[in-house]
Amino acid sequence: MVLMVPPFSRLLYSNPISHSRGISVTRVGIINVTGYMGAEAARILHGHPALELVSVTGRSAAGQPLADVFPHLAPLGLTIEEELGDVDAVVSALPHAASAEALLPYIERGLPVLDLSADFRMRRASEYEAWYGPHPRPELLSKAVMGIPELHRDEIVNAKLVAGAGCHSTAAILALAPAVKAGLIENDIIVDSKSGISGAGRTLGLTYHFSEANEDVAAYALNGHRQLPEITQELGALWEAPAPRVLFVPHLIPMTRGILVTCYAPARRDGSLSTDRLRAIYRDFYAGSPFVRVADKPPATKQALGSNDCLLYPAFDERSERVVVVAVLDNLMKGGAGQGVQCLNLMLGLPEDAGLQSLALYP
Amino acid sequence: MVLMVPPFSRLLYSNPISHSRGISVTRVGIINVTGYMGAEAARILHGHPALELVSVTGRSAAGQPLADVFPHLAPLGLTIEEELGDVDAVVSALPHAASAEALLPYIERGLPVLDLSADFRMRRASEYEAWYGPHPRPELLSKAVMGIPELHRDEIVNAKLVAGAGCHSTAAILALAPAVKAGLIENDIIVDSKSGISGAGRTLGLTYHFSEANEDVAAYALNGHRQLPEITQELGALWEAPAPRVLFVPHLIPMTRGILVTCYAPARRDGSLSTDRLRAIYRDFYAGSPFVRVADKPPATKQALGSNDCLLYPAFDERSERVVVVAVLDNLMKGGAGQGVQCLNLMLGLPEDAGLQSLALYP
Amino acid sequence: MVLMVPPFSRLLYSNPISHSRGISVTRVGIINVTGYMGAEAARILHGHPALELVSVTGRSAAGQPLADVFPHLAPLGLTIEEELGDVDAVVSALPHAASAEALLPYIERGLPVLDLSADFRMRRASEYEAWYGPHPRPELLSKAVMGIPELHRDEIVNAKLVAGAGCHSTAAILALAPAVKAGLIENDIIVDSKSGISGAGRTLGLTYHFSEANEDVAAYALNGHRQLPEITQELGALWEAPAPRVLFVPHLIPMTRGILVTCYAPARRDGSLSTDRLRAIYRDFYAGSPFVRVADKPPATKQALGSNDCLLYPAFDERSERVVVVAVLDNLMKGGAGQGVQCLNLMLGLPEDAGLQSLALYP
Amino acid sequence: MVLMVPPFSRLLYSNPISHSRGISVTRVGIINVTGYMGAEAARILHGHPALELVSVTGRSAAGQPLADVFPHLAPLGLTIEEELGDVDAVVSALPHAASAEALLPYIERGLPVLDLSADFRMRRASEYEAWYGPHPRPELLSKAVMGIPELHRDEIVNAKLVAGAGCHSTAAILALAPAVKAGLIENDIIVDSKSGISGAGRTLGLTYHFSEANEDVAAYALNGHRQLPEITQELGALWEAPAPRVLFVPHLIPMTRGILVTCYAPARRDGSLSTDRLRAIYRDFYAGSPFVRVADKPPATKQALGSNDCLLYPAFDERSERVVVVAVLDNLMKGGAGQGVQCLNLMLGLPEDAGLQSLALYP
Repeated sequence: MVLMVPPFSRLLYSNPISHSRGISVTRVGIINVTGYMGAEAARILHGHPALELVSVTGRSAAGQPLADVFPHLAPLGLTIEEELGDVDAVVSALPHAASAEALLPYIERGLPVLDLSADFRMRRASEYEAWYGPHPRPELLSKAVMGIPELHRDEIVNAKLVAGAGCHSTAAILALAPAVKAGLIENDIIVDSKSGISGAGRTLGLTYHFSEANEDVAAYALNGHRQLPEITQELGALWEAPAPRVLFVPHLIPMTRGILVTCYAPARRDGSLSTDRLRAIYRDFYAGSPFVRVADKPPATKQALGSNDCLLYPAFDERSERVVVVAVLDNLMKGGAGQGVQCLNLMLGLPEDAGLQSLALYP
Repeated sequence: MVLMVPPFSRLLYSNPISHSRGISVTRVGIINVTGYMGAEAARILHGHPALELVSVTGRSAAGQPLADVFPHLAPLGLTIEEELGDVDAVVSALPHAASAEALLPYIERGLPVLDLSADFRMRRASEYEAWYGPHPRPELLSKAVMGIPELHRDEIVNAKLVAGAGCHSTAAILALAPAVKAGLIENDIIVDSKSGISGAGRTLGLTYHFSEANEDVAAYALNGHRQLPEITQELGALWEAPAPRVLFVPHLIPMTRGILVTCYAPARRDGSLSTDRLRAIYRDFYAGSPFVRVADKPPATKQALGSNDCLLYPAFDERSERVVVVAVLDNLMKGGAGQGVQCLNLMLGLPEDAGLQSLALYP
Repeated sequence: MVLMVPPFSRLLYSNPISHSRGISVTRVGIINVTGYMGAEAARILHGHPALELVSVTGRSAAGQPLADVFPHLAPLGLTIEEELGDVDAVVSALPHAASAEALLPYIERGLPVLDLSADFRMRRASEYEAWYGPHPRPELLSKAVMGIPELHRDEIVNAKLVAGAGCHSTAAILALAPAVKAGLIENDIIVDSKSGISGAGRTLGLTYHFSEANEDVAAYALNGHRQLPEITQELGALWEAPAPRVLFVPHLIPMTRGILVTCYAPARRDGSLSTDRLRAIYRDFYAGSPFVRVADKPPATKQALGSNDCLLYPAFDERSERVVVVAVLDNLMKGGAGQGVQCLNLMLGLPEDAGLQSLALYP
Repeated sequence: MVLMVPPFSRLLYSNPISHSRGISVTRVGIINVTGYMGAEAARILHGHPALELVSVTGRSAAGQPLADVFPHLAPLGLTIEEELGDVDAVVSALPHAASAEALLPYIERGLPVLDLSADFRMRRASEYEAWYGPHPRPELLSKAVMGIPELHRDEIVNAKLVAGAGCHSTAAILALAPAVKAGLIENDIIVDSKSGISGAGRTLGLTYHFSEANEDVAAYALNGHRQLPEITQELGALWEAPAPRVLFVPHLIPMTRGILVTCYAPARRDGSLSTDRLRAIYRDFYAGSPFVRVADKPPATKQALGSNDCLLYPAFDERSERVVVVAVLDNLMKGGAGQGVQCLNLMLGLPEDAGLQSLALYP
């Protein structure tokens, strides 16, 4: 039943293309692999059929084998370096400000660059500055594309600099975009986000200390969270109305990965809205998008654990005449490195889902 | 430094009154002690200085020592019975419908009765019926008092039948009552609740199976949750407006105990609202209430673990001109058996916080 | 930098072989896909380059789309059937006894069969009977091979019937085999296992109810666990001594996936043992085994989450003159379906690690 | 049914003695209240009928309200001070070495002193030094009593300086003492401990970072844990044999509180051991001890959550002729501050269980 011809047996290994017939792969480097986002990008690239991770840096760990910092990445066989070696494309997992600085030489050389920090998410420098302080290279903002393929696929295909979107904002934007675009809701949006703790990164803090965070829920950033302007900017581009009025409150949940956002907005009173119509509109909107699915039941974050999926559940609440949309995703995948690789695929002319087809780890 | 006179040494034991000078205690019985809510009531009564748990029933476990079902309750030394023995006051932890039936004889005898089910929470039988089906004794609804002392203290003091409020609804009502009463918000309220899994009780279900519920968040009851009418009824009594328009969405959180509700409502545009003013109004509202505190920072559910506290954090969001109120409590304590004992104390002329002074278990 | 020639672009999809040049893949069926082990086998097969999952059964769910039971398996596009369709190889995830019965026709037809139940793990029917009751087909026991490739690789290559080993026993056997084989330890072994709750399956039980199992550790099966005879049988085959004397105590840990076993045995007093020598012996033993690694530091279960790895940490404790070996693995992967697919690969002449190269999901 | 006479109504409040008839209470101070152990001592004292917490210090937080560091301790109404005020008894929750230094003045003044650090646990300075470095006041070691009332009750009653025992070691010692004392086991003991993460304290570390520790188990201190000599010392005092040979391996479990130790030792071959006989011996040994119970089934850590209980389950494994004893306790209670207050009660002539009668918080 299995008819293996010799050259194909090699295809069974993880990088079929690289091992066969001399077809070259794109050599990728990750700047700052030592956080969770960088490590997740490395994990994805290990299984990618057309991208090969060849070089990684890490601020304080240069010289160490990557396996010392992240034993699960041992099969990559890499050592953390001071500077990236010879690469064809660059992913930065540095924090904001540091990221723009570090990426500058690669941007200038015209290499495909994916920035997972917030540095290139804002179209307007003033907006960036209001939330993060002065932008290190404001003139580059106009060259960057927001890395949400479901909204900006064509731009990403032609971009050299893509800004990976935030984890909360990806969930909120994907949850609301079809309703905003179709003019179904009033300009009065609430995004209540529940997120796992890996979103806070690997940097230590009492809030993320196990004994404090376990068996606990808390709201944070009640004065405004930095991903709010991403939501406002992206939704604002979808309608003719004034800037979206969004209230966004994130909550810390005692789990490692996963985000669930519950979005609320008054339905426009045209009298014809129903959950069925909503679902049809959402299905149409995401028809060509391999990673966004409209679920039949309210989805659970676990259904996207470790996968690049975003599951949406839009509903019309007749009592309050509101649209309620629930979205779930894995904050390090579709909310981070996974979506980043999705963008990189598009930038490099690869199938959008290359290296991203793993199913969720359930349970 | 310690001057112990003989009669007082005995006061060091848990029921000081019962062991000294012949002062009688109130003998309490719990119907259906075998769920989490009944067990929690038993736990509280064990440490209560003026109430003594003398009899417990449980539907399928009659004849078994209570310690077999709940080893932590072994020190109570009770056996589960078919019917309550001789008691002065009754607590029911039965599910709705069954609870009203079982309580009827005690209500008729005029005993102080605390019902932790939903059977006596609604003032109008039609409202009960819309959510639960026909009420087994609709004529009793007018005799019952909603068991939220912060809103109904005087009525509870004079009541013989008190309905313990729901866990979500207690949190939402305490979070919103001061703002509603003071006319600070528009009639357009969203309650987004995040609750631990013990709220679903001890009955098995795939949703509460560890491997499914762990590392997971999901919204549920998107078509309407049975505690919604409690919120509407209680808030509606606080203003002159039409019935409150409330959208309530609960979420299941991977922790055992705790509820955090985040409440959103547009501020009335009188131009003078601020977080400081809000906090002052909230502090005034709860000035005489020992268990409700206005927190200085957004509170965490863990701060109320095992205690009868409800911590509130009201804020005014200038960007969206909305009032946001966060409330946390322990769903089995202030959201259940703890608040129930608080009511029982009032019904029996005891200090409101008797037996309820334990601090939260932290971390 | 990417030179894609047309036929290879298709290789980027999950089943490169099936989509190119007409090379046939092995069509696999899973009996009882509706438990965690069956679902995990399905998840792995989705990403397998040479095996295609074409048919699944499930006892009570026949007729339902697989996506209704497990939304994360939606991309497989399968419907649960009463009986397997036309397949080239069979995986059973039924419970013991039922599994042997259901597999009989496939065994008789000579199809490659992987049984993930305990039915074919014991070489002696009497041993099976002592733990599970009478064996439904004792005459088949001699035809089956124990599915631990690190010990039985050659036999598995030539087998038609392989018994996937238990999760605890795989960990214990891999942890102890090199020491037993090399005669380093006395015949007096303790295996203390700590396992995640998914090992108990999807069947409901109070022990696995979230509110009970969360924030809790307990020992179980103190009178003897059914995986004990697997450990005894496999280790016993490695030395000339009498049957291994093993005490095995499993513990339930509040996490979904993962097993850590800590194994203790007195060192033979030849005076030359050291941690370094132990590690060298272990490295040699597993030199040709892609999934077993000797770790440099005590490993954490999370390092194997979702991967087919088993990480070992052998040490010599000078104070007590004991060998201590820690092993970690994912109970559904190397402790179940992952190891099963590893065996299937060998049975089918595929590379041992085909479809199993994913790195652990960390954190 | 309730006959309250005026003076007794006041007894319903937490410190009945202090509020009635002028009976003085013991004023207690806690040095270093800002860690989990200090905070837990404060929590217990809040509900203690004869001890009043009047002063607390904390190294870096002096001047802050205690409620700022631990909101759940707000009802104590204390401010963190540089130095303890006027107190009758002192509890230190400082780390080792610092603790002995800080306690010296109080020891010299003859105040009752409870040290929760390791500084006074060892009877021999050389043993202390081997694990912790030079002892700051070795001459005091002979004056201290090990704070395990079940073994040293009479000494504690007469002591001025008591060393609270370690959390693992309390569990292991209570689990093994009856078997050692009765000569039932060989001198060849294994202690495999599974502990919640609060045992590691509030100090930040990657190992205790939520995203790393959650969904994870790992062994640690494989080269020897500092609580090993406590186990050896205390068990060694119970038999005439040479020093106990103990191998102790702790494991980190993803839960906040709780320790379960599984202890293994070969039974002495006198032919008469059985689980029933073991249980009878254990019951006798702990007959007068209010907090140690022999459980009927293998106990779960949750059964002791927040209580001062230690539940034991001794069994004889016939297959391996070994004694297996499981013990569970709450590491901050019976494994720390709870046992400390139990000692303080004894030192001060109070009932051993004063302030410690709360039942476990279940679930």
